[in-house]
Amino acid sequence: MAMIKKPVTGMKDILPAEMRIRDYVTQLVKETYQTFGFTAIETPAVEHIENLLSKQGGENEKLIFKILKRGDKLVLDDKTREDDLADSGLRYDLTLPLSRFYAAHSAELPNPFKALQIGPVWRADRPQKGRFRQFVQCDIDILGDATNLAEIELITATTTLLARLDFKNFTVRINDRRILRAMALCSGFGEDDLDTVFIILDKMDKIGAEGVREELVSAGYDSGCIDRYLSLFREGANDASYLKSLSDELSEYLDGDCISGLCDIMESVEQVKNADFNVVFDPTLVRGMSYYTGTIFEITMDEFGSSVAGGGRYDEMIGKFTGSKVCACGFSIGFERIITILLDRDYQVPGSKEKYAFLIEKGASGDFTASVMQEAMRLREQGACVLVSMMNKNKKFQKEQLEKEGFSADNIREFYYSEFKR
Amino acid sequence: MAMIKKPVTGMKDILPAEMRIRDYVTQLVKETYQTFGFTAIETPAVEHIENLLSKQGGENEKLIFKILKRGDKLVLDDKTREDDLADSGLRYDLTLPLSRFYAAHSAELPNPFKALQIGPVWRADRPQKGRFRQFVQCDIDILGDATNLAEIELITATTTLLARLDFKNFTVRINDRRILRAMALCSGFGEDDLDTVFIILDKMDKIGAEGVREELVSAGYDSGCIDRYLSLFREGANDASYLKSLSDELSEYLDGDCISGLCDIMESVEQVKNADFNVVFDPTLVRGMSYYTGTIFEITMDEFGSSVAGGGRYDEMIGKFTGSKVCACGFSIGFERIITILLDRDYQVPGSKEKYAFLIEKGASGDFTASVMQEAMRLREQGACVLVSMMNKNKKFQKEQLEKEGFSADNIREFYYSEFKR
Repeated sequence: MAMIKKPVTGMKDILPAEMRIRDYVTQLVKETYQTFGFTAIETPAVEHIENLLSKQGGENEKLIFKILKRGDKLVLDDKTREDDLADSGLRYDLTLPLSRFYAAHSAELPNPFKALQIGPVWRADRPQKGRFRQFVQCDIDILGDATNLAEIELITATTTLLARLDFKNFTVRINDRRILRAMALCSGFGEDDLDTVFIILDKMDKIGAEGVREELVSAGYDSGCIDRYLSLFREGANDASYLKSLSDELSEYLDGDCISGLCDIMESVEQVKNADFNVVFDPTLVRGMSYYTGTIFEITMDEFGSSVAGGGRYDEMIGKFTGSKVCACGFSIGFERIITILLDRDYQVPGSKEKYAFLIEKGASGDFTASVMQEAMRLREQGACVLVSMMNKNKKFQKEQLEKEGFSADNIREFYYSEFKR
Repeated sequence: MAMIKKPVTGMKDILPAEMRIRDYVTQLVKETYQTFGFTAIETPAVEHIENLLSKQGGENEKLIFKILKRGDKLVLDDKTREDDLADSGLRYDLTLPLSRFYAAHSAELPNPFKALQIGPVWRADRPQKGRFRQFVQCDIDILGDATNLAEIELITATTTLLARLDFKNFTVRINDRRILRAMALCSGFGEDDLDTVFIILDKMDKIGAEGVREELVSAGYDSGCIDRYLSLFREGANDASYLKSLSDELSEYLDGDCISGLCDIMESVEQVKNADFNVVFDPTLVRGMSYYTGTIFEITMDEFGSSVAGGGRYDEMIGKFTGSKVCACGFSIGFERIITILLDRDYQVPGSKEKYAFLIEKGASGDFTASVMQEAMRLREQGACVLVSMMNKNKKFQKEQLEKEGFSADNIREFYYSEFKR
């Protein structure tokens, strides 16, 4: 019988030391977001294949783990195609299931509805270091709120959480899909060019303005158009005055409320924040997902390459299920990224319980063992962790191992039946 | 585009009210078991199909959700059979993944290793009321401890947890697979009869001794054999003296240590327990899984039909992966069953945070909104839950809804920009 010890390709077992940090962060996420009025929900890991393939998930749809039909539904003959084999699959994000959830249950939910989801998603990405095929996403979403309050609450809640995890000096970058569009359109790009232009623009932080220019030229765009476009961006420009100046240039392509709304969000977050971070306007921020319709935002830290959180407004997606428009705005922290950073920092979970190890001499009677366990129960009732074990032959080695696991020498107690003798 | 609102067949969305209870129980499980020295681990939801089909899971193997091979691995032609389509599947329990986990990582783990797992498993059971195709299991296991300490700790930890959830007056039933075998063998049944005999014996609590006799007769067993077998059971007999009397009758078929060990466990649990329950010997307790090798146990409550926890010793299973014997003993609470009971009881999560709702007049300036949110942040820092919302046109309805969601009228505050006027 072939029994395979390793986890399946691209997935990983989580050992106690990492699990301690994951459990702590999960609990902190729940406690923090709940103070902002978010309530936890859960959807099944398995989704209808029709929903998963609805083109809401962009490139991620190619990475779906599909689940085989069962029983009579599975027909195998010479005409069977891959599409005939699966009627469900593992979810690749939490946003699509949230939309389905809201469409199914909105009558039972408050309005606006502030949802918190933490759970695994699956993507059959090419396995690579630090990137797994099962990973946890952690999303907060506000459904049914068209006002800026949604953005302000999402940003304030997320930054409060990061601060509680000792993240400092980070930057919230904010943009709006409508500004992104307007800047391209007013420069002379066409609607059909936008996807390509934004994919190139997204590289600005890596290849700089000249790199972007070169790639746009290579892609065959008109140089006048490219010049106009690049002249709209200013190096390091990220203040409200720049944002307001754009307002005039883009007025033909953009509702004036869009820029003033963005200014309001930035100013309010600055006033309300209780963490160490900056809010900046970033006209080069693109965010890949096609479902975003308005504001988009991301949190970056200089010390780490990629972002630790991202989100935005997606006012059209839920309507695909419900048939009527439901405003929505969400912010997702990079749970796995944050765990990796904390592990790299050798992060110590605060408020850990006192730990004792009780070692009982081998061959002890039931009564003696019970008396030791009663003592253990008294400490446990006070919240301490007490490990009760039989004493090994090599007691020295056993105690060394216990010290490695965080039991201090003072808290390792030995109980000898032979001394007890009654 | 067909977008389906309902979850896939047999799976369910979890709404905020149930989620609050699930999160509370999960956290209590972790806190309680950690005081007993259990450490949390996690394995991927997806397992190798070879491991899932290794016959450790009994009937559950028929219920596996299989995952389609990807890319070049998926070959479809006229010879393709179902077995060619999948190389992995969703785990149907937590015991098999734990065995694989331990085989892969034992060198990095303490010995004995006390594992805690809480996570979803999937079984393609026929959908029925209260039974879902994705459900949470919650297991504690002690690996590498051959002594009774394992059983005593598992039972004490589980009963402590149940007591913290206000479960009272429950019964821990305990038996041993070896006693079960010995009672059948000494009555004259053969090795090959055991599976069938135990399936019938398992119905004792429902159909009584006479029902069991009838079914054994129908199954074609010798009546002398059946008489001898049934004479070994005593109605309501569950004390240590009965257990000891069995010892003599079974001596030819049973190592004497087995019964004295069971007595030790029962006596120690009675001495150590700090919850309201009884421990009884139950010679009719069977527990289905074929991997059990020694003690088996279950927790029942008169008010509920089925058991709320079950487990036992399985000393042979992990060796299938590692090649060398590793003793193992586990206890699993019926997480979903317990949640259902708590929901039916209208269980109120203790220590819930104070909740406020701040309603802001529509059209308020950014500054005014920010000042309200600053006030909200002060309360949030103290741990309170503060929901900040814009005031609806129908304020009365909005406030009624908030009261239904648990915001007391006193804690719903209105903020008027028009009064603020500065």
